[in-house]
Amino acid sequence: MAELKKVGVLTSGGDAPGMNAAIRSVVRSCIFYGIEPVAIHEGYKGLIDNDLEIMNARSVANIINQGGTFLKSARCQEFRTPEGRAAAYENAKAAGLDGLVVIGGDGSFTGAMLLEKEHGLPCIGVPGTIDNDIFGTDFTIGYDTALNTVVEAIDKIRDTATSHNRLFLIEVMGRDAGFIALNAGIAAGAEEILIPEDQKPIDQLMDSLENSGRAGKTSSIVVVSEGDKSGGVFELSRAVEENFPAYEVKVTVLGHIQRGGKPSCYDRVLASRLGVASVEALRDGISGVMVGVRDQKIVQTPLEEAISKHNAIDSNLLKVADIVTV
Amino acid sequence: MAELKKVGVLTSGGDAPGMNAAIRSVVRSCIFYGIEPVAIHEGYKGLIDNDLEIMNARSVANIINQGGTFLKSARCQEFRTPEGRAAAYENAKAAGLDGLVVIGGDGSFTGAMLLEKEHGLPCIGVPGTIDNDIFGTDFTIGYDTALNTVVEAIDKIRDTATSHNRLFLIEVMGRDAGFIALNAGIAAGAEEILIPEDQKPIDQLMDSLENSGRAGKTSSIVVVSEGDKSGGVFELSRAVEENFPAYEVKVTVLGHIQRGGKPSCYDRVLASRLGVASVEALRDGISGVMVGVRDQKIVQTPLEEAISKHNAIDSNLLKVADIVTV
Amino acid sequence: MAELKKVGVLTSGGDAPGMNAAIRSVVRSCIFYGIEPVAIHEGYKGLIDNDLEIMNARSVANIINQGGTFLKSARCQEFRTPEGRAAAYENAKAAGLDGLVVIGGDGSFTGAMLLEKEHGLPCIGVPGTIDNDIFGTDFTIGYDTALNTVVEAIDKIRDTATSHNRLFLIEVMGRDAGFIALNAGIAAGAEEILIPEDQKPIDQLMDSLENSGRAGKTSSIVVVSEGDKSGGVFELSRAVEENFPAYEVKVTVLGHIQRGGKPSCYDRVLASRLGVASVEALRDGISGVMVGVRDQKIVQTPLEEAISKHNAIDSNLLKVADIVTV
Amino acid sequence: MAELKKVGVLTSGGDAPGMNAAIRSVVRSCIFYGIEPVAIHEGYKGLIDNDLEIMNARSVANIINQGGTFLKSARCQEFRTPEGRAAAYENAKAAGLDGLVVIGGDGSFTGAMLLEKEHGLPCIGVPGTIDNDIFGTDFTIGYDTALNTVVEAIDKIRDTATSHNRLFLIEVMGRDAGFIALNAGIAAGAEEILIPEDQKPIDQLMDSLENSGRAGKTSSIVVVSEGDKSGGVFELSRAVEENFPAYEVKVTVLGHIQRGGKPSCYDRVLASRLGVASVEALRDGISGVMVGVRDQKIVQTPLEEAISKHNAIDSNLLKVADIVTV
Repeated sequence: MAELKKVGVLTSGGDAPGMNAAIRSVVRSCIFYGIEPVAIHEGYKGLIDNDLEIMNARSVANIINQGGTFLKSARCQEFRTPEGRAAAYENAKAAGLDGLVVIGGDGSFTGAMLLEKEHGLPCIGVPGTIDNDIFGTDFTIGYDTALNTVVEAIDKIRDTATSHNRLFLIEVMGRDAGFIALNAGIAAGAEEILIPEDQKPIDQLMDSLENSGRAGKTSSIVVVSEGDKSGGVFELSRAVEENFPAYEVKVTVLGHIQRGGKPSCYDRVLASRLGVASVEALRDGISGVMVGVRDQKIVQTPLEEAISKHNAIDSNLLKVADIVTV
Repeated sequence: MAELKKVGVLTSGGDAPGMNAAIRSVVRSCIFYGIEPVAIHEGYKGLIDNDLEIMNARSVANIINQGGTFLKSARCQEFRTPEGRAAAYENAKAAGLDGLVVIGGDGSFTGAMLLEKEHGLPCIGVPGTIDNDIFGTDFTIGYDTALNTVVEAIDKIRDTATSHNRLFLIEVMGRDAGFIALNAGIAAGAEEILIPEDQKPIDQLMDSLENSGRAGKTSSIVVVSEGDKSGGVFELSRAVEENFPAYEVKVTVLGHIQRGGKPSCYDRVLASRLGVASVEALRDGISGVMVGVRDQKIVQTPLEEAISKHNAIDSNLLKVADIVTV
Repeated sequence: MAELKKVGVLTSGGDAPGMNAAIRSVVRSCIFYGIEPVAIHEGYKGLIDNDLEIMNARSVANIINQGGTFLKSARCQEFRTPEGRAAAYENAKAAGLDGLVVIGGDGSFTGAMLLEKEHGLPCIGVPGTIDNDIFGTDFTIGYDTALNTVVEAIDKIRDTATSHNRLFLIEVMGRDAGFIALNAGIAAGAEEILIPEDQKPIDQLMDSLENSGRAGKTSSIVVVSEGDKSGGVFELSRAVEENFPAYEVKVTVLGHIQRGGKPSCYDRVLASRLGVASVEALRDGISGVMVGVRDQKIVQTPLEEAISKHNAIDSNLLKVADIVTV
Repeated sequence: MAELKKVGVLTSGGDAPGMNAAIRSVVRSCIFYGIEPVAIHEGYKGLIDNDLEIMNARSVANIINQGGTFLKSARCQEFRTPEGRAAAYENAKAAGLDGLVVIGGDGSFTGAMLLEKEHGLPCIGVPGTIDNDIFGTDFTIGYDTALNTVVEAIDKIRDTATSHNRLFLIEVMGRDAGFIALNAGIAAGAEEILIPEDQKPIDQLMDSLENSGRAGKTSSIVVVSEGDKSGGVFELSRAVEENFPAYEVKVTVLGHIQRGGKPSCYDRVLASRLGVASVEALRDGISGVMVGVRDQKIVQTPLEEAISKHNAIDSNLLKVADIVTV
């Protein structure tokens, strides 16, 4: 196995809090192990455009607590083509990169997998996305921060809901997975939680709201995952208003505040651990895998598997949600 | 002047952070001056429904740091009729109230003014609304907290805007007044701020965005007051996308998170001061006024004037906004 | 196995954010399963003083987001005596309690274990303490919140440390365990972390600070666990000042802010899960155990074991700490 | 009056949140008015060491929301000597500076005043300090943020105080002025507030605590300004313990967390306004003054006066404090 001399790092796809902590960890792990770290700007686009920068330990000072990614992220249609990837590889080769760490979600991992398969550049994936929908890790970087952001926002809305006896429908992120909605919903004391994995007929929601009303609850919070199939939070609002003309229904779409903010302690530690693990994997001659954390231990999952499989919602948690909103 | 024995307090209209601190201050000021404090639930509706409660110092313990209003607020169509107000007055009289403190906005003050004019119950207004659009006070209770909430939200959106070179249009509260948009916009470093008081032609926005782009800014935040007449943030988004097809435009409506949350230090102190001032005014035989703060001193403004006049945006601040976004 | 009819719940020992969420979950789980929930005020003291209160679902509304414990906690010397426990048991029996859920740390679990052994009252422990030093669970309720509180505080201190080229020694909680110091230290980007489990000679700290200085770092954060044996943060400060007369050294003891605050999403969900698990264990005829979470699954550990064993610091995390502060 | 071509800006003395926003505003105001902005690192030390840097609009991007000062601040004994100031002036002259904006407190303003008197370099002071103890402005940059930081910290301590029926003595910053203690104390619902401007005999504190106890309050928060003359918070603690052996007394010194953190909306807007005002003053040929805000309007105060006079505590606020803690 050839000695590792130069490793690139990039962030790709939707940004997530903790990506900077992950970049910092990759850079410093490289330095710790005598490898030269190279930052690639704007994801795969920067590889194609040859927008690279040699890093040192000071390059990543004071970023561990910053949201977003200072390397930036960008969509890159060109990289989805074999020609784009070939161009990217040429630049990587010219720069002397003998390994690449890709921080992002499954779209980003698909790119890494193809780059390695087609051109032999050893790639490691690091799961960075607020959605927590990546197989091969219990938690993705950014997810814990997003949960806290959502819960803080719903706490605020609860203040006004309670003051006015209102029903709030709150849409949170999670196109394919209800992790954010389910956990933040439990934590915020939501009366109902609608997620893609557990489609309830709308009648059930109406029954539940009616029961709430009878039990003396005068305000309600319903958390809706954007991936829920009931037709979107605005359509849901119309349905509730038709069924309960007396209710004052309000809709809030939390939107992009969920992506930003200072990363939580958990996300910073997770990012630090996975950054180290990604460089150590490359040093061990391992590639084509994503590093993740399972049962608090570092594990590696082939990129192919990380992309194709999905974490299931914990069904016990669905039950907990039912019980605590009694 | 008859001695003051029993004073009622209610919150009305949209809730605002710091209302609880104001209720607490009214209650404790009463006790301090040997007056019996009576809480009225759900605003004027509670007065009509005779939903009153005698308070003591402990009744308002541990609420100074809570958002919303624990007395709740409600719209009350009935109180807008002379019959409704007569019913409310009968209950106030039966309960022995010889004064009433109304915490709310101008709609609430109109009710107080009519109640006093028609039935002679001495009323004092305390300005509680996040919009800061009430004449007779430099700051309304809740405004400072809302500003911080908005700025924190935009800081989060800035993280993701910067990571992706995106343009964000962010709608903030302020139907008739751009105070929130202007101040939060400056504080969040927004590239453009659109407010009702300073309607700019859409061309000017486009020019500014074009200049920004030429100056090397790759992401932009535009803060839009909900009262801005450019047709709403979604229409604006379409206009920008037509003019700048290359731009990726995102819209966020901050919504009701702006109403809730723990009140800021400033709002808690302001609420404490105005609560004391409202009871002291009643003791001095003064009524039909709103207590406010001007140049850091307590002032009184006739309710009529507080309702009919409006604070103007500080034009110097518009200039500051232009300069710091150079 | 006799049917469960009435279950008591109390919080004991040092308070931790999320205890209210745990109480809420125990109360609502009881109601869900047709059991009458009984709250006991001020821990074991309330059991001896017969300070009990029947709960319903509304009794625990709007507390999930509150720090501290609304049932209060108290030290109780009397309960440490067989006579005290006998008195407590008499009250429990008179009230018809056929189970007791104790939320607290290992001191509280010792009491529960003795109460069950001596009098046969089925007891379940729920781990609530910020220190995370309880065997039988990966995380204790309150720990995640405390970590975020510590990291936010150090982020603030970093601002001023960087502005002034200063060295800060920051003492965090953790008398016997360095979990808070190690995780918060990594997350806050501390240059050095001193914990009881990994005693470094003071020379090593001095060497490290000297290296930092040579590497161009002009400010430093050293996080010290209160249980660290180097003699306390003030003594350490004197030692550093003697060795580096040029350094301006500042000491901050974070203190009790670490115990309070709104619980994080994670702590609220964990508390909700463990509350449900505690009642379900009693229903299953299980007692004398603590419910915890291991590898994301609910597990039960005999109270005796939970008290006598201790979680070890993850040695990989120590290595991560070394690498990312390169 | 000669045209203004080049203006320097520095931060000096203790750092305060919002200093970065002020630097940004000075830099962008210069650019807006066609002046070249020059940043000076580490306060007056940087002027003596000739550590200057030409700025452009992008140099100050993304700093408005950062605590501390990216230009850094340092004590500089040398600048306190005529020789030091002469050396500083030579560098300023060589760099072509025809104006200097000094962001800091009264020590910093003394330096500016002497530099202008001795060498004729036009200087403007901008009040940046968390203590709010500078004459000529209602608010200093950083004060509002520090208030919110203190109130959030006390809110957290309140959680644990209430859970355990404890008395907490909390020391906050303010060596010569009780602004932070008084305002944060009111906002946090402190039972007692001890400030330098209103020395109470210790007996009065004891009486008040005794009354609190009798009124059924089982926990108490006492906020103590570091400048209070009762001998420091630890001595006070001993005195309370002697008088109330039953009380469990805890001490927390908030320390340097009060200096850091993201600036509040108010501080960012204030800093933006004062930055603009400082450059506009120089353009108007005015110097030797501090720009401040009085009754929401920009005012100028001779540096000499800003240094020698002091803002008094609002005595009405002392009364409000007494009333709301009834």
